[in-house]
Formats: sequence, C-alpha cells, structure tokens
Amino acid sequence: MARIAYVNGEYVPLDEAKISILDRGFIFADSIYEVTAVIDGGLIDSDLHMARLERSLGEIGMPMPVPASEIVAIERVLMEKNGLTNGMIYLQVTRGAVERDFPFPARDTPQSLVMFTVEKDLANDPVAETGIRVKSVPDLRWARRDIKSTALLAQVLAKQAARAEGCGEAWMLEGDTVTEGGSSTAYIVTADKRLITRPLSQKVLPGCTRAALLALIAEGGATLEERPFTLDEAKQASEAFITGAGALVMPVVGIDDVTLGDGKPGPVTRRLRTLYIEQARRQAAEQAGG
Amino acid sequence: MARIAYVNGEYVPLDEAKISILDRGFIFADSIYEVTAVIDGGLIDSDLHMARLERSLGEIGMPMPVPASEIVAIERVLMEKNGLTNGMIYLQVTRGAVERDFPFPARDTPQSLVMFTVEKDLANDPVAETGIRVKSVPDLRWARRDIKSTALLAQVLAKQAARAEGCGEAWMLEGDTVTEGGSSTAYIVTADKRLITRPLSQKVLPGCTRAALLALIAEGGATLEERPFTLDEAKQASEAFITGAGALVMPVVGIDDVTLGDGKPGPVTRRLRTLYIEQARRQAAEQAGG
Repeated sequence: MARIAYVNGEYVPLDEAKISILDRGFIFADSIYEVTAVIDGGLIDSDLHMARLERSLGEIGMPMPVPASEIVAIERVLMEKNGLTNGMIYLQVTRGAVERDFPFPARDTPQSLVMFTVEKDLANDPVAETGIRVKSVPDLRWARRDIKSTALLAQVLAKQAARAEGCGEAWMLEGDTVTEGGSSTAYIVTADKRLITRPLSQKVLPGCTRAALLALIAEGGATLEERPFTLDEAKQASEAFITGAGALVMPVVGIDDVTLGDGKPGPVTRRLRTLYIEQARRQAAEQAGG
Repeated sequence: MARIAYVNGEYVPLDEAKISILDRGFIFADSIYEVTAVIDGGLIDSDLHMARLERSLGEIGMPMPVPASEIVAIERVLMEKNGLTNGMIYLQVTRGAVERDFPFPARDTPQSLVMFTVEKDLANDPVAETGIRVKSVPDLRWARRDIKSTALLAQVLAKQAARAEGCGEAWMLEGDTVTEGGSSTAYIVTADKRLITRPLSQKVLPGCTRAALLALIAEGGATLEERPFTLDEAKQASEAFITGAGALVMPVVGIDDVTLGDGKPGPVTRRLRTLYIEQARRQAAEQAGG
C-alpha cells in the first residue's frame, strides 16, 4: 500500500506529494516542523507538540495555519489511512509559496501545511537494548535554537559526522559545555546518581519529551539538576542518555572514545525509559477510551 | 506567457514546478543556491558563480549535480524560453528526495537541481538613483556563512526587520562590527576616500559581485582596505554601498537613524556602479559575439 501524505488540504500518495519550488520552506527554510511519536495508536505528548509548534511559529511571525485541534484531526486521518499504530508523524508549516523575496509576503499568502507518517516500533526499538555512542562536534548553529525551524543544515552535518564514526547521535559543544544532541536533548547521570541536563534557553530546543520526562521524574520524587555540563563531566558520568520524539529515552553508552560504566545501558536510564513508555501507553489508552 | 522553470531535467511552467515534500532542501535546508544576474542577455560573473556553487557544495559533501557547463547551458535555455534579457536566474541544488533521516543518504541518491528566472532591469533600477537605507540587526546566523546554503531563516528575519522600518537591507552586527548585509556585501567610503569592506572568512559569504568589483577597483589603481568596520565608523562614513547579484552596486544613503553625507548616492559609489555595469555589458557583448 502506498503511504498517504497530507499536502495543503489533500491526501495524496507520498511519492506524488509535492510542493512548489517557490515555497519559502524550500527556498529560505522559512518554516517550522514537529515530529510526534505514535505508540499503541496514541499520539504521544501531542499537546506539548502543538504548543511548541504555535510558539515556534509565533517567534518567526507566523500564525498557526489551522487550529491545533484540526492538525490533530489530520494526524488521526493519516494514522487511519496508513494503518499506523506505532511510528511518527512529521509535520511542517511554511510561510507559503510566493515570488522569491526575503521579507515576509503579504499577510493573505496561504501558508503550506505538509504531513507524512513513518512506521517504527519506537517502544520496542532494539537499539535501546544496547544503547548508542555519541560523537562530540562543535555547535555551529544559529543563535535561536529554541525555534524548531527547518534550517537544519548544521544538524545534518553534525549527525553525518557522528554516523561516519558509527555513532547514533552528535553532542554539540559550545566551548567546553554540551548544548544538546543533533536532534535530541542530552542528559548525564553522575556516579552519585544526580541527573543533569541543560536548562532551557535560546541555546537549546525546549524538548517535548524532555518536558514529559521531567514531569515523571518530579512525580517519582527524584530531582534533576538543570545546569550546563561539560564534555569532560559527561565522559566521567556513570550513565548518559538522550530524549526525543523518535528516541523516547535512549541510552548513551559511549562518548567519543570513552565508554561509560560497563558499556551497557545503566539502571537509571532503563528505569526512565520504562517509565516514559508506560505513561505513553497510558496516553494511548486514554485516547482510545475517549 | 507562463514563466518556464527547470526541475530535474524538465522544463515546466513555474506554477507547475514542484519538488517532493521529502526533498532534503525542503526538510533540512540541505541545499545550496546561487543567483546570477542577466544584463543585456549576458550571464554576469557566471564563472565566479559556478566556482562558488562547486565550493559550497564541496563544503557540505556534495558534488556538482551536473558539470558547470551544463548548468550554464540550462540557464541559456531558460533565458531563451522566457525571453529573458535582463533579470536574474535562481538555481538550487539539494541532496535529493529520500526517506527523512538527518545523515547523508546513499551516494547514488539523485540530487535535485531547480532553476527559475526573474525579470528585472537591474542596470536601470530606479532605486539606485536615490539609494537605500539600511537597518542594523544582530547577526544571528550559524558559524559557516561562507557556505551559500538555503538555511536562510536568520536572513529572512533580518531583512523583514529592515523592511518593516522602510529599509532596503539589513546590516548584521557581531558585537560592534558589521559582518555583511542580509543578502549582500557591505562597504563604506571614509571621508578621506578610503574604501573598506570586511575580509573573507567563515563569517561572511564570498561575494561574486564583491570579487568582480575588487578586480575593477584594483585595475583602476584605487585600493580597498579589507578589514572589519564598526557600526559607528559606518555611521560616520561619507558614503556606503552594498553589492550583490541583484543589487549590483547599490548606494546606501542612511544607516539606522543616521543620514550619510547629503543623503544622496555619493560620487565614489556612483562611479563604481557605472564601472561595474560597463564591465557587465562587456561580458554580455563577448557572450553574444562568442
């Protein structure tokens, strides 16, 4: 069965899903995206993704193309049309297709809204059993990493450099400190079991999975220190992991040429992954019952 | 007559010119572009643009999609199909359309090559008679501004901020110094007639019009100081201007709330604009005779 995508009001086979070469998403990266996990037929952390989408758009002077409820309705249709119960939904909103000119076009220019699905059993990803290694690279990105724009070339280069050395993610460095992963939030667990991740600012993306996990950690009575950590500190950690819509909670077992602990996913990370997947399944059950 | 664009081997009406929503140019800004001026039927500084295209592609690990001579041949076909004798040709090369994944796809993934034309009498642009004002804004861009990528959101925001205040260009600031314009190179002329522009580095795009103008300046026996200049220095300049494929040499008559000189294009700038257009017309004549 051909995968069905959504392009500006139409449901079309993915291989026929096209946008104008004048689209500002193509020509200027003048667009915002979101990736939402689907687990057991549930849209995971959907409210967080819709809120972040609206915030990112607002930061670059764009409204929501349609209300969040309508976006979620389209996601549901895509899930049904594609028989998707486990995977991801990608969505991208652009400032529309119009004669090429850097400043914003007329306010009545129709925005573009594009979505497609990816099938993947995220909760049973075999990679989580062994964990990934990460490679440190300089953070070359622009000053507004809090905006989830499609101007992702720096991240492409960072993640390619990581892949080239057999690593599953890049950790980007500003000076000595880790900002975040190429497409994920970075965490370490110290020898005395303190959990550390960088605080939110314009230097990092406000992760939706991060927000959901922090709520779970707080519920469990544990604490997380929000502060920058250095690459050296990370290499001395007993555990490390990343979070993201596709990664969920993914163990990191090595950084550059250093192996963490015994080179296997650590107990804190495994526990957090389990907790996160359990609450995702509760979300799915609530959505099915609702 | 509908404008004709070029998309991956096909000549199609511009309003039917489309690319896949999976194209990495759309999803990751994983693409490089060039804009070449057309004056009197000539492709201006074409060799410089082709060399820069190849360099930018190489910096992000992409080859030329077809040899430079073939790109120029396509440009000529587009000029003929569109009856274009004055304007610009836009071209964009991407890493192709493939399942979304940040690292580079398989080497045999076909790149995308897209081109379209814009009609404009650049050499007789009435804006050059009065000049433009520029607005200073913080330079939010990534660390590799020497790569002409389509990750242009920072430039979109900069040029929108300028337009909102009636300015024709944004001058981007790193600390006190001007890096460059949103889509142009920045120059000042001091009271004692010294011409100043920032030296090439990863902080600025290596302008093709800049290179051509510098050669003309050297031929004329004048000298240009390549060094960073501050916003304050620029505000005290007797003249200022920008260069770019669309702007050619465009007078700047005001910076923020400061008017330069008598608020009209200065003699050095007008002379350089004339010299640049004369050599462009010589290029056009040579191409017509060749």
